[in-house]
Amino acid sequence: MSVHAIAAVLSGQIPPGSRLTVQGWVRTRRDSKAGLSFIAVHDGSCFDPLQIVVSAELSNYRSEVLHLTAGCALRVRGELVASAGKGQTVELRAESIETIGGIDDPETYPVAPKPHSFEYLRTVAHLRPRTNSIGAVARVRHCLSQAIHRFFHERGYFWVHTPIITASDCEGAGALFRVSTLDGLNPPRTPEGQVDFSRDFFGRETFLTVSGQLNVEAYCLALSKVYTFGPTFRAENSNTSRHLAEFWMIEPETAFADLHANADLAEALLKFIFRALLEERVDDLAFFAQRIDKTCIHRLEQVVNTPFERMEYGEAIRILENAGETFEFPIRWGVDLQSEHERYLTEQHVGRPLVLVNYPKEIKSFYMRLNDDGRTVAAMDVLVPGIGEIVGGSQREERLTVLDARLDEMGINKIAYNWYRDLRRYGSVPHAGFGLGFERTVSYATGMSNVRDVIPFPRTPRSADF
Amino acid sequence: MSVHAIAAVLSGQIPPGSRLTVQGWVRTRRDSKAGLSFIAVHDGSCFDPLQIVVSAELSNYRSEVLHLTAGCALRVRGELVASAGKGQTVELRAESIETIGGIDDPETYPVAPKPHSFEYLRTVAHLRPRTNSIGAVARVRHCLSQAIHRFFHERGYFWVHTPIITASDCEGAGALFRVSTLDGLNPPRTPEGQVDFSRDFFGRETFLTVSGQLNVEAYCLALSKVYTFGPTFRAENSNTSRHLAEFWMIEPETAFADLHANADLAEALLKFIFRALLEERVDDLAFFAQRIDKTCIHRLEQVVNTPFERMEYGEAIRILENAGETFEFPIRWGVDLQSEHERYLTEQHVGRPLVLVNYPKEIKSFYMRLNDDGRTVAAMDVLVPGIGEIVGGSQREERLTVLDARLDEMGINKIAYNWYRDLRRYGSVPHAGFGLGFERTVSYATGMSNVRDVIPFPRTPRSADF
Repeated sequence: MSVHAIAAVLSGQIPPGSRLTVQGWVRTRRDSKAGLSFIAVHDGSCFDPLQIVVSAELSNYRSEVLHLTAGCALRVRGELVASAGKGQTVELRAESIETIGGIDDPETYPVAPKPHSFEYLRTVAHLRPRTNSIGAVARVRHCLSQAIHRFFHERGYFWVHTPIITASDCEGAGALFRVSTLDGLNPPRTPEGQVDFSRDFFGRETFLTVSGQLNVEAYCLALSKVYTFGPTFRAENSNTSRHLAEFWMIEPETAFADLHANADLAEALLKFIFRALLEERVDDLAFFAQRIDKTCIHRLEQVVNTPFERMEYGEAIRILENAGETFEFPIRWGVDLQSEHERYLTEQHVGRPLVLVNYPKEIKSFYMRLNDDGRTVAAMDVLVPGIGEIVGGSQREERLTVLDARLDEMGINKIAYNWYRDLRRYGSVPHAGFGLGFERTVSYATGMSNVRDVIPFPRTPRSADF
Repeated sequence: MSVHAIAAVLSGQIPPGSRLTVQGWVRTRRDSKAGLSFIAVHDGSCFDPLQIVVSAELSNYRSEVLHLTAGCALRVRGELVASAGKGQTVELRAESIETIGGIDDPETYPVAPKPHSFEYLRTVAHLRPRTNSIGAVARVRHCLSQAIHRFFHERGYFWVHTPIITASDCEGAGALFRVSTLDGLNPPRTPEGQVDFSRDFFGRETFLTVSGQLNVEAYCLALSKVYTFGPTFRAENSNTSRHLAEFWMIEPETAFADLHANADLAEALLKFIFRALLEERVDDLAFFAQRIDKTCIHRLEQVVNTPFERMEYGEAIRILENAGETFEFPIRWGVDLQSEHERYLTEQHVGRPLVLVNYPKEIKSFYMRLNDDGRTVAAMDVLVPGIGEIVGGSQREERLTVLDARLDEMGINKIAYNWYRDLRRYGSVPHAGFGLGFERTVSYATGMSNVRDVIPFPRTPRSADF
C-alpha cells in the first residue's frame, strides 16, 4: 500500500475508496461511546491533520490505541472514505495501526496539546515545530524562500554565495562578532602588546558578515543581475522583538539600474512572494488570520494589489511636520525617520506601501550615490502598513572620485576598500540594490510579532541554545 | 528601445530586424580594413558575448569606438541582423554606442584578455567573475542551487534555516571557529583563571556550525521531510584543493526513512541536478569540456543515465583485498576508506557511481544507527568516478537506549545532547539523511580541480581577502 503525505490526501488527489498508508504523529485522540476512536494524525506536510477512524475491533485497540497520546508516532493503513464529520472531507478508516514511537511520560511531554506561550515554546525550540503555530511558520518560511528564488531565477538573476567570514566591516555600522581560533586565554601578542592576529587562522582579524552587498557588487559588475540569500549577523545587545543576532537577508544587485528601477524590483518582489504565499499556503494563513492576527491576509492582499506610493524624503518631512501628531522623536529635515514616523506615513497618510527616496547623505552609508543636489543620496526605504521599514536600498555610487570624497568625508580608510574601489576603476556602471530582512518579512506575513518565533533556532543576547 | 539580456538575444527569442538595446562589457574589439569594427559585448547572462558591428560612420567612431578596450562598459542600440560570420547566428548592427564606464589604464587591467592562472585569479577574486571560466562557474553554481531547491520543493521537503552560531560541536569532529565579542586581549576570567564565557555575547562559548544535521533532525521529527542549504565551517589547517574553511552544504533529513530510502534520495537528487545542468547550461558546459576537463559532460551523463551500484562495506573490503593493487594505505576490515580505495571501487571495479553501506561503527559518528550485527552502523557514502566520495549520510539512531550506550561508549557528555535525546524520547521514528558538499559538487560538474575556484570568495588558512 503506497505511503502518502497527508497534504496529498487532504488535497483531493486520492479518490475515496483508495487503500493507503500514512505516517505521522498523534495530535488528539477522542473515543466515542459507540466503540470508535478518532485520531487526528499530523505529518507536517500541511496545516491540517488527517482524521483516522479506528474501530474497537482492531486487534490492538485496547492494548495500544486506547493508550495513544499526543506526539505518539504512528503508521496507519486503511481505506480513504468520504467524511460526514465537520472540518474534513475525507477520513481514513484504519485497517491497522502501528505505534512507531511512544511518548516517554505523556504528563510531562513539553508540547502536550494545551496553550503554551511563545516565550515558553522558545525554551523547547527543538519540539516547538510540532505545534500548530511554529509548524505553520516553518511552512510559510519555506514557501517565501522558494518564491524568492523563483522570482529571481525567472528574471535572470544569479544566486551568489557571498562570504560569511570577512575581514571587512562593510559600512562600519553594527557591532561585529569576531571569528577566531586563537587561544582565548593567552592569545599571541605583538611586540606592542596587542593581540597578534597575524597568527590567527586567516592571518588577520576576521568577523561574521553584516551584509553581502559589497561582495555581491563585484559579481553584479560581471554578471549584471545577482542576489544573495544568506545569514547575516549583528552583535548588538538589542533585546527587542525585531532584532536577532543571526538573521537571513536577501540582497539583489542590478547593473545598469537606477533608484527607480530598484524600487520597481522591490515592489515586484514583495508582490510576487506574497501572491505565492496567498496561493500556496491557504491553510497556514487561515490559521494565522484566525489565531494570531486577523489582518494578516488583508495586509498581504493590500501589498499584492496596490501600487506602491513613491515619495521624496523631503516631502515626507513636510507631511510629518504638518501632521498635527505628537511624535516621541521630533521631526525636521536631516533626521532619520523612526518607526512612529514611518508608520504614520504608510498607515495614516497614504494608507498603502510607500517607497521613500532620496535621504540626506549624513544619515546614510558611504556607498550610496550622491544626488545632484549635493545633500541627498539615492537611497530608498520601502515602508509597509503594520511594520514600517521592510526593505532598505540604494543606487550605489559608481563614480570613483565621488566615492573617494565620501570615504574621506566620513574618515574611512580607503586602503581597506581598494578592491571595492577597483569596481569603479574598471568598467563601472550605474547599479543599485537593496536588502530584504527575511525574518521581518515572515513576521509581517504571519502576524507573529516576535522575530524569535519565525526563525527555527533564534540567536539573541545570552541565548544560543540548541 | 527595449533593453534585452544577451542570453535572450542569442537564444533566438528576438527576431532579426528588431531594434533593441544591450548593455554590457567589451570582451574584444577587432577593426577591419573595410572601416568596420567588431566588438564582442558580454553581460554575464550567458557564456557567449554578442557581436556588435560598428560602422566608421558612427559619430563617435574615431573619438570613442576605436579606443574601446576589454572591460569597458557600453550601452549599444541597434538592429539585430542575421550574421554571416562564424560562431554566431545573429549580430547587432550598432546605431549608437555609449561608453558607460571606461578602464583606468588598460595596460594594467588585472583581468585583461590573456591567459591567467587560477592562482593569480584568486588574488583578484573581485574581478575574476569577468573571466570566461569563473563566470561560467557562477552560472553553473546558480543552476545547481536552483535545481536543488526545486528537487526538494517538488518532493514536499521544507527548507529549514539551521543556526550558524552554535554552542554544540556536533559530532566532536572537526576543529571549530570560536565566535565571540569578548575583549581578545583581556578577556574576563573565572575565579579559576579560565575565560569567563558567561560574560560573552551569548552567555556561553559559541562556535560556527560544522553541520546543520542535529538541528534539522528536530524539524524532521515535526515536518517529516526537511533539508538545509547553508554555509558550514571547518577550522582545519588543510591546504588542499578539496578543503575550504567555509563551504556550503545540503543536508536533507527524512522521517520514516531507512538507509535504502536515503540512498534512493541521494541518487535521485544527483541525477536531477545534473540533468538540469545538462539541459540548462549547455553553453557553460561546452566551455568546461573544451578548456578545463574533456570528460565533464560524459561524467554528468553517466551519473544521470546509470543506476548507482549498491555495495556493503564488507564486500568492498574483500574486493580491495583481492584487487591486486598496491595501495598507499593498507586495507583491512575496520579501516576508513581513503580516496584511492574509493576511486578504485567506483572507477575500476564497478565503473559507475557506487553507494557503499554499513560501515564499522568505530569509524563513524555516534548518531548513526547500530545494525543488528552490533558491529556496523547504517552509514552510506556515495562514490562517483573521478572524485570519490560526494555524499555521506546515514540512518540515525532513533532508539534512546542504543543512542545512550553509544554516547557512553564514545565518552560523550550526554547532558549536552539532552535536547537531541528528547527527539528519541517523544514520538521517535526511523529517519535518515545525508550531506552533499556543494563545492565538491560544482567541482565535479565543471572539472575545476580546486574548490577555491568554484566559490566566489574562498576562505582558507591565512586567506580571507575581499
